[in-house]
Amino acid sequence: MIFLIQSLLSLLLWKPAKEEEEEKYDGVKSTKKEHKPLSKDEIYRLRKKHVAESCILFYDPKPLQIVRARAQYMYDEQDNEYLDCINNVCHVGHCHPDVVKAGQDQMAVLNTNSRYLSELNASYAKRLTDLFPEELDTVYFMNSGSEATDFAMTLCEVYTGHRDFICVDSGYHGHVQSATSISDYKFNHPKGIGKPSNVHKMDLPDTYQGQYRGSDAGPLYAAQAEVLVKGIQDKANGVKSGVAGFIAESMLSCGGQIILPEGYLKTCYQTVRAAGGLCIADEVQVGFGRCGEGMWSFAMQGVVPDIVTIGKPMGNGHPMSAVVTKRAIADRYYQRRPEYFNTYGGNPVSCAIGLAVLDVIEQEGLIEHAKTTGDYFLSKVQELYKKHTCIGNVRGKGLFLGIEFVKDRDSQAPDEATAVSMKKAMYKHMIIVSTEGKYNNIMKVKPPMTFDKANVDRFCEVLDREISDRYLANGY
Amino acid sequence: MIFLIQSLLSLLLWKPAKEEEEEKYDGVKSTKKEHKPLSKDEIYRLRKKHVAESCILFYDPKPLQIVRARAQYMYDEQDNEYLDCINNVCHVGHCHPDVVKAGQDQMAVLNTNSRYLSELNASYAKRLTDLFPEELDTVYFMNSGSEATDFAMTLCEVYTGHRDFICVDSGYHGHVQSATSISDYKFNHPKGIGKPSNVHKMDLPDTYQGQYRGSDAGPLYAAQAEVLVKGIQDKANGVKSGVAGFIAESMLSCGGQIILPEGYLKTCYQTVRAAGGLCIADEVQVGFGRCGEGMWSFAMQGVVPDIVTIGKPMGNGHPMSAVVTKRAIADRYYQRRPEYFNTYGGNPVSCAIGLAVLDVIEQEGLIEHAKTTGDYFLSKVQELYKKHTCIGNVRGKGLFLGIEFVKDRDSQAPDEATAVSMKKAMYKHMIIVSTEGKYNNIMKVKPPMTFDKANVDRFCEVLDREISDRYLANGY
Repeated sequence: MIFLIQSLLSLLLWKPAKEEEEEKYDGVKSTKKEHKPLSKDEIYRLRKKHVAESCILFYDPKPLQIVRARAQYMYDEQDNEYLDCINNVCHVGHCHPDVVKAGQDQMAVLNTNSRYLSELNASYAKRLTDLFPEELDTVYFMNSGSEATDFAMTLCEVYTGHRDFICVDSGYHGHVQSATSISDYKFNHPKGIGKPSNVHKMDLPDTYQGQYRGSDAGPLYAAQAEVLVKGIQDKANGVKSGVAGFIAESMLSCGGQIILPEGYLKTCYQTVRAAGGLCIADEVQVGFGRCGEGMWSFAMQGVVPDIVTIGKPMGNGHPMSAVVTKRAIADRYYQRRPEYFNTYGGNPVSCAIGLAVLDVIEQEGLIEHAKTTGDYFLSKVQELYKKHTCIGNVRGKGLFLGIEFVKDRDSQAPDEATAVSMKKAMYKHMIIVSTEGKYNNIMKVKPPMTFDKANVDRFCEVLDREISDRYLANGY
Repeated sequence: MIFLIQSLLSLLLWKPAKEEEEEKYDGVKSTKKEHKPLSKDEIYRLRKKHVAESCILFYDPKPLQIVRARAQYMYDEQDNEYLDCINNVCHVGHCHPDVVKAGQDQMAVLNTNSRYLSELNASYAKRLTDLFPEELDTVYFMNSGSEATDFAMTLCEVYTGHRDFICVDSGYHGHVQSATSISDYKFNHPKGIGKPSNVHKMDLPDTYQGQYRGSDAGPLYAAQAEVLVKGIQDKANGVKSGVAGFIAESMLSCGGQIILPEGYLKTCYQTVRAAGGLCIADEVQVGFGRCGEGMWSFAMQGVVPDIVTIGKPMGNGHPMSAVVTKRAIADRYYQRRPEYFNTYGGNPVSCAIGLAVLDVIEQEGLIEHAKTTGDYFLSKVQELYKKHTCIGNVRGKGLFLGIEFVKDRDSQAPDEATAVSMKKAMYKHMIIVSTEGKYNNIMKVKPPMTFDKANVDRFCEVLDREISDRYLANGY
């Protein structure tokens, strides 16, 4: 009903706007062309011909054509419905009407750069920084997580005067050169560039497969930071060598949906700061309430970062990101470097969308929803764990879960084949999941935050049946 | 009239869409908050408090608050109208109704990543590559000019196996670390990082202030490429040292609105290619018909680049960019590097907007319009040149013009004071221009492409009067 009233209101508002446009664009006729729909084969042919092959299609050579999406559902060209379990970008749900409306309304009014004063820009900057611990009070707006990582690195370099970074095994922080250089997931890929000499890598703090598995695993894994810091300081006999920064996702996504063990970031941060370095929390994938315990996942570790990078969920699909930092760090950059200008960063359309996303998270209680649904989801996959020995480990916080497949529970040998086979089986049932992790044996779940208990039930029923069928087929 | 029909149609289409949303978001109430407008002072205070100071505001401490914009006009909070002579991003006009509608419609339907097959993505890839010379047939979609430069550099490095770049004095190619490293405008700034050792700089091919001024200036300036190439090859006695790439804007924007002299790029490209390097044309500022002589400014130089970066005008303000290259270059990247994934690049909303921009350029004849209006503009500023000796040089192609202020015509000494004073005077008359160039003495004009002859007349009348007033005030 509210939507109907809104529709009517938007109609009333729409007509004058159009008339005004007609006046401003005096004599200019509408130029919209009619494109007749292409067949799926033709689309595939054009894509292969004109888009670079490095831009991978899911399920290629039989890719999925998606024509529309709503909430946690996507629809193909024949209107088949798919349950989206992986798109954390469309955070409050694909095409959420409030977010769409905020973007639509603002697009028609103003979309320009942030060198002009804008209420949307200033209000959003306040609203966003208010969500962080008090000292994280200053924001830079940009377009992508990659741009955010790149600039966070620059802030570290300028502030410390150093250029060595510590990152975590299997981490991914973006596709630009700088971000790739600290992303083990990229540089350590078989076709990667290898680890640069100024980059130093922590082991994966994985309490299932890793070296330390007990309740003291956090500080034990974090102790490696001291070794790395010492290595960096020794490197050039103390002459202009030191730690610029430490970067870690607050929950490890590409690392295999790993929940950091207690005390991990606290110890890492202490060590890095003692060496003069800054600590970056990468919340591009895991921020905005996904963990179900508050807005930012770093808070679960009891730390306050020096710099936070945020992105994907921020705009529910609209290209936007930000770096949030402390005023002293921003001030030093201001003193020592030229203006920071980003053509689109903080434009009014992005800010209107960003504000709408925050409104929806708050008013739909999506953080609590992630907690409730995530707890339920975890309990249901724990039931599957009890039933199926191919599942070696299940873990999660909120709507961020991992199901790890192993050859057997004694050896815990990673079982990529089963993980991938299950991913394909789920796809046949129109459930979209992906696999991840060092050995690609972890089923990754990070759906839009509107994902509900009925979706959980469907997911678990299908997975249960498919694992059973695989057992039968393999003669267990 | 067409707009009215469109409005009515969109109303009819709108209601079912809203109903569908209501159905899909069953039980979810609209959560849009009402924000009451803040005063300009309050907005300024919030901006200063929460946005980093390095993000500069125009006219600070009395910035301009812009609340809406249409075509080449922007409006402040009191509805005063400003003539926008510098925003080349809003290429087909601020908030062009067709582009707005394309974005609005697609936002409500689907906005997801390019790992799913999408007609909009494939069609736009074809439409875009069809606008380039045949061999430039492959596209990568991204979000910003900076991301495009970064990836173009990577393509050069992967293809050649080298990492030395040749760039042009005063050039700007983006704000990420890699792009900054080849942007003299940034690294050579008083607060810049200085020129990296793998970067080599050509002099500005400026036929007014530079070393060569005759009809043979192009090849003469370009001859420096050979010296730089030799320097690069000698650097490591030929061992794994060589040219990765050469990058230049096809018209020099930050360099001071410089039109490249004939034969410049041809000779540069020949030299760089003979050394095994690739040639990047940066069309982020100057592409999409701005020069009035076709879609891409590099064509005026009679060259075909190996890689073209495009951005700003591409989405009329929407964050999008692309790298267009040859299949062989893309293929080598595919063989040697992991997947290229960009969260937002090539999403259906961006592609719908990109297609609408191309439709508008074509159907409103904006390239021809840029030619006609630009020629008229140039003739009018040439009249000012004849009248006022403080103008040392005027130049332009299409809607890309520069007016260079000098202390006197004999010495040609750059006159930043007059340039800046004229910029401020124009602002008092609600005409927004900026100054640029090595000595900040060039008035830069690159308005939305809807800029018309009446705007030219207004611009020139005001500038004429203001220059005369300044003469009088200074006692000439």
